[in-house]
Formats: sequence, structure tokens, C-alpha cells
Amino acid sequence: MKELEQRILRDGRNLGGGILKVDGFINHQVDPALMDACGREFARLFASVHATKVLTAEISGIAPALTTAFHLGLPVVYARKTKPITMPDQVFLTLAPSHTKGRMVELIVSPEYLANGERVLIIDDFLASGQTILGLVRLAEASGSQIVGIGALVEKSFEGGRAALEALGVPVESLACITKMEEGKIEFRKAEN
Amino acid sequence: MKELEQRILRDGRNLGGGILKVDGFINHQVDPALMDACGREFARLFASVHATKVLTAEISGIAPALTTAFHLGLPVVYARKTKPITMPDQVFLTLAPSHTKGRMVELIVSPEYLANGERVLIIDDFLASGQTILGLVRLAEASGSQIVGIGALVEKSFEGGRAALEALGVPVESLACITKMEEGKIEFRKAEN
Repeated sequence: MKELEQRILRDGRNLGGGILKVDGFINHQVDPALMDACGREFARLFASVHATKVLTAEISGIAPALTTAFHLGLPVVYARKTKPITMPDQVFLTLAPSHTKGRMVELIVSPEYLANGERVLIIDDFLASGQTILGLVRLAEASGSQIVGIGALVEKSFEGGRAALEALGVPVESLACITKMEEGKIEFRKAEN
Repeated sequence: MKELEQRILRDGRNLGGGILKVDGFINHQVDPALMDACGREFARLFASVHATKVLTAEISGIAPALTTAFHLGLPVVYARKTKPITMPDQVFLTLAPSHTKGRMVELIVSPEYLANGERVLIIDDFLASGQTILGLVRLAEASGSQIVGIGALVEKSFEGGRAALEALGVPVESLACITKMEEGKIEFRKAEN
């Protein structure tokens, strides 16, 4: 998506070590109009998979997942990283490594909101190693749901996450695919998104 | 707002001890259309305060703050509870008690996105004791910003948060104001919202 790529080039920063800073429009300050446009694009890309629910992980997946769900007319569930007191004792829980925290974090979904037979579209901010998304896949599968698609705002193709997801046999879409981050530069995949 | 009150009556649950469970449409599973309607209503209520930025706290403030900011055409900043590696060393940080965690949590905003002279509209999911919102107020004031309004989806008037915010002299709006939660019931303020 040209709009997202241009925003990354304008306001994103390559901090080195494969770390892309998008705190000015995705991860800390959020541009709601950009998120709405991204949600609209995901809704278009995944119109044919007939999802019944959007699933993401707190925190930074919430904005793009919410706008995608809005444009698809679906509810969105965000996996919690700590179990709130309002959640029942029996939950779906898995562990996933956190890139930014340097340790494993829990991903928790209440069985109240992820039921047997749902068709789940996973939306997140980043597809890098794919570990968070694979954690969401495990939660969905534990509930008896079926994954029907996976979307990420930004893919870092050099971290191999797409290959890790391929075995699922579902469409995997990213709106901006970064192939190279060297010497402070950011290079996108040439093909159209 | 009638739509939100009716949803709370239909899908919310009074768990006792003043705890309202809204995990089915606000806090874990989110109804994007309802959040959009709430954001539109906040944008209407706060049209005259001429905010330049919406501020909230992760996690459950993100959805209503995002839709409010969308309808006002503004960026939204969510205070982080842990400092990501992409954030500079110098930050605005305050402590606020967490109702659900039973301990103090950090609220952190980067000076990159909260500048001197901003007109800040605070949006959160709940106004109960007001402690989280007062934490956001301290962050905004530390940055030299001015608070111009405060909005919460759900107010629990019996927890006294509104009184704690009154000294700020800015409009405080809630879309559903609960006056009483006894014996499993939920009672709203009679006046129109």
C-alpha cells in the first residue's frame, strides 16, 4: 500500500539491528486516518475468506485490527497479556517470545469470545519472525476455530515469518513489505501490494 | 448515550464489588461499530474545545480514543505501561494505581509526541476513581500541554472520580453513567447524556 510505504519512509526510522521505529503513526502515537485506510485495505484483501472474527494481540495490533473489523462488520478480539479479574478461570493461553521485552509473554483469550467453528482473520502490526502470530494461531486452534487469513501492516521479509506461516495454507498479506534495512535505509519489495 | 447503556444492560455483567464486566464489547472482544458510534459522539461533545491531540492509556482506552481521534481528525497518543526499545531515554513518566492489577503501574509518554502547547483531550474506557485519568493529566502537564476535556465511555459515579477531576475546570463527559451497582443490578443516571 503506497500510502503506508510513503509514511514509513517519511516518519519511520531504521534504528539498526532490524528495528523499525514507527512510534509516530502506529505504535505510540497513532494516525487514525491511516489506520482506517489500512483497515479498509485489509477488508478488501480478505473479503473473500468470509471471516467471522478478527483476532489480534494487545497492544499495537489493536488499532489496525479494530479498523479492519469495522470495515468487515465483524467483532475483534485482542489476546490479553495479563489475565484481568473479569476473565473466567478457564482460558486459552499460550506463550510467545516478545521482541521488545526480550522474554516470553503470555497470550490469553477467553473461551467466551473464541468459539468452536469461528473463521478467524488474524491482524497484527508487524510480521517479523511470526512468533506472535503463531501464538494467536495456537489460541485459535485450541478453541476449535479455523484460521482463514493473516494480515500485517508491516512485514520484515528478512526475518522469515512468512515461511513459518506458510504451512497454514491461508492467504498472508502485508501492506508494506520491507526486504532490507541496512545503513539506515529502508527498502520495500518492488511488486505491488 | 442510549446505545451504550442498552449494550451494557444486555451484555455487561455486574460481578459484584463494583466490578462491571464489559469484556464482550469493550475490553477483550470489541464491537468496532459501537466504538465508532462512541467516537463520533465524543467528537460531537468535544467539538468546541479545539483539541490538537487525543491522549489515552493502553490498553482498553485505545479503541474509543482511536475512533474519537478519527472523527476529530487528530492524532492519538496512548501512554505505554512499559517503555519500548524504540522510545528515547528521556520520557514523561508517572505512576497510577491499577484497579485490575492491584498495584501501581507506570504511564509513559515520549516527549516526541506530547509537546509544549498541545491542547489535549483525554479519552478512556472507564472513569471510576479517576486515578488513571489523573495520571494522564500529570503527563500532559509535565509536557507543558493543556487539558481541554476528559471523556470516558463508562462512568461509575459512586467511585468519586468526577469530583477528583473537577479542579481542572474542563468539561468531563461520560457516555454511560452508572450510579448504582447493587444485587447484580446496573442503574444509570436518569438525565440525558
